[in-house]
Amino acid sequence: MSFTQKSSNKNFGGELRKYSFKSKTLGDLETNINVFLPSEAVSGGKKVPVLYYLAGLTCTEDNGAQKGGFQQEAAKQGIALVFPDTSPRGAKIEGEDDSYDFGSGAGFYINATKAPWNKNYNMYDFITKELPEVLKSNNLPLDLTKASISGHSMGGHGALTLYLKNPSLYKSASAFAPICHPTKCPWGEKAFSNYLQGGVGEGKANDATELLLQAGGPDKRKLNILIDSGLADNFYNDKQLLPEDFAKAAMDQGYTDEHITIRLQDGYDHSYYFISTYAPEHVTYHAKFLKA
Amino acid sequence: MSFTQKSSNKNFGGELRKYSFKSKTLGDLETNINVFLPSEAVSGGKKVPVLYYLAGLTCTEDNGAQKGGFQQEAAKQGIALVFPDTSPRGAKIEGEDDSYDFGSGAGFYINATKAPWNKNYNMYDFITKELPEVLKSNNLPLDLTKASISGHSMGGHGALTLYLKNPSLYKSASAFAPICHPTKCPWGEKAFSNYLQGGVGEGKANDATELLLQAGGPDKRKLNILIDSGLADNFYNDKQLLPEDFAKAAMDQGYTDEHITIRLQDGYDHSYYFISTYAPEHVTYHAKFLKA
Repeated sequence: MSFTQKSSNKNFGGELRKYSFKSKTLGDLETNINVFLPSEAVSGGKKVPVLYYLAGLTCTEDNGAQKGGFQQEAAKQGIALVFPDTSPRGAKIEGEDDSYDFGSGAGFYINATKAPWNKNYNMYDFITKELPEVLKSNNLPLDLTKASISGHSMGGHGALTLYLKNPSLYKSASAFAPICHPTKCPWGEKAFSNYLQGGVGEGKANDATELLLQAGGPDKRKLNILIDSGLADNFYNDKQLLPEDFAKAAMDQGYTDEHITIRLQDGYDHSYYFISTYAPEHVTYHAKFLKA
Repeated sequence: MSFTQKSSNKNFGGELRKYSFKSKTLGDLETNINVFLPSEAVSGGKKVPVLYYLAGLTCTEDNGAQKGGFQQEAAKQGIALVFPDTSPRGAKIEGEDDSYDFGSGAGFYINATKAPWNKNYNMYDFITKELPEVLKSNNLPLDLTKASISGHSMGGHGALTLYLKNPSLYKSASAFAPICHPTKCPWGEKAFSNYLQGGVGEGKANDATELLLQAGGPDKRKLNILIDSGLADNFYNDKQLLPEDFAKAAMDQGYTDEHITIRLQDGYDHSYYFISTYAPEHVTYHAKFLKA
């Protein structure tokens, strides 16, 4: 499927480009992505590694690009950033736009198995399969064999689960205030019971904590995960995020700080002011694996 | 007038706080400001220097705070940032919300002299007088004797004119894609002819290029001005910005790069992707004078 370039803005010596294309996986709906290319990719045509950033509930491809503060360090490291949207748009399913935490803006990075959602709400396949194929077939100067993934909140859940489920696709994962145990929190319960035929039970296959409990420890699989989560985050206090469950699973599986670093940050909340504070460190973290 | 604190977000070790207060200068209307305090001001109670950032047409106090990318370097330098709104809001004047470049979101940082605008549209007095007084009377940990000013587009015009008109208020000025010669461009002509009784002629007193022509050269007044403007900026190509006129006035007055640096940046446009690219350098520039 070929891209339409909707805009391009020079940014930190590179370019922030917005593309749109009709997505097969999302039921032939148009979707937008933002791609940041560092200067060596724009002018030198050099193929650079890729960091995907999955945004959270209510967000689009723009939030991370405009407010995340990732580009300065990505430009320095010579890494591209890919910012997809958070759900299909305009599927015209009844109730799609009724709540902020389900439907539009809330695809949860899973494949829906329940009608009518299963026709369009396939963000898992979109991010892991169609998006890299489309980036490749449009000849962007990206080395897609070197990819890592990050995300915020619902997108943090996405980054962790996609990474845990696809050992060969991503070198590392990081997350800002991720939903760590969706089968045990209201957001996840709502999403899984409405998107999935098998409800919350079926959701376990898309739950970072449950997946980590099956990872088998560092002898079976090395993991590179960095998580930052704020202690003044309302959603943390409301038990939507549950990083403690993910930390416990890590310990149970024998993973140490060398593999999984979870930092609870004093005073920080759920906003992009939090994300932008730690975004440069996350880019640096991924660069270590992407450029290894 | 005392503040109401509407929110606070931890950001780069400091805090981004939103305050609102009823402004006398703006005809007793409520106005919002964002204030970034670096950590030493938040926890140490140390009084830190201040950099004001004036946003452009259609913007509010949020654009610079959320997308500008100033905080990381401000935190590093130990400088506070103050982001005011771009106009009074809700003055209920007929036509106030009809166009993007006049009325709401387009106060032009002048005092209107023409009815009905002169009751509320007094952003010049607001920024130069009431705002510092309110910051002082609310005991924010700011050293208001050390202040500099920056801005974008209409706010760049504001930063340059307020600096040129108030030698004792600001140590330095900088601007991103500023409207440099408003009496000679459509935006400025529209604003001055509608806000000012004396029309565009009266506007000369609020025109950076005209003010610079009266500065008298470096022997009379030393200037510290940094301007970045993009060559792929539609508004530059449409002759709304006219940095070349400001550059010529600087040369006519005997100012060199030591006093006024104007950088035309290849490929950059008018967006916050441009601003965020150079924001750290602008903060560093001001820090030199604020911490001297």
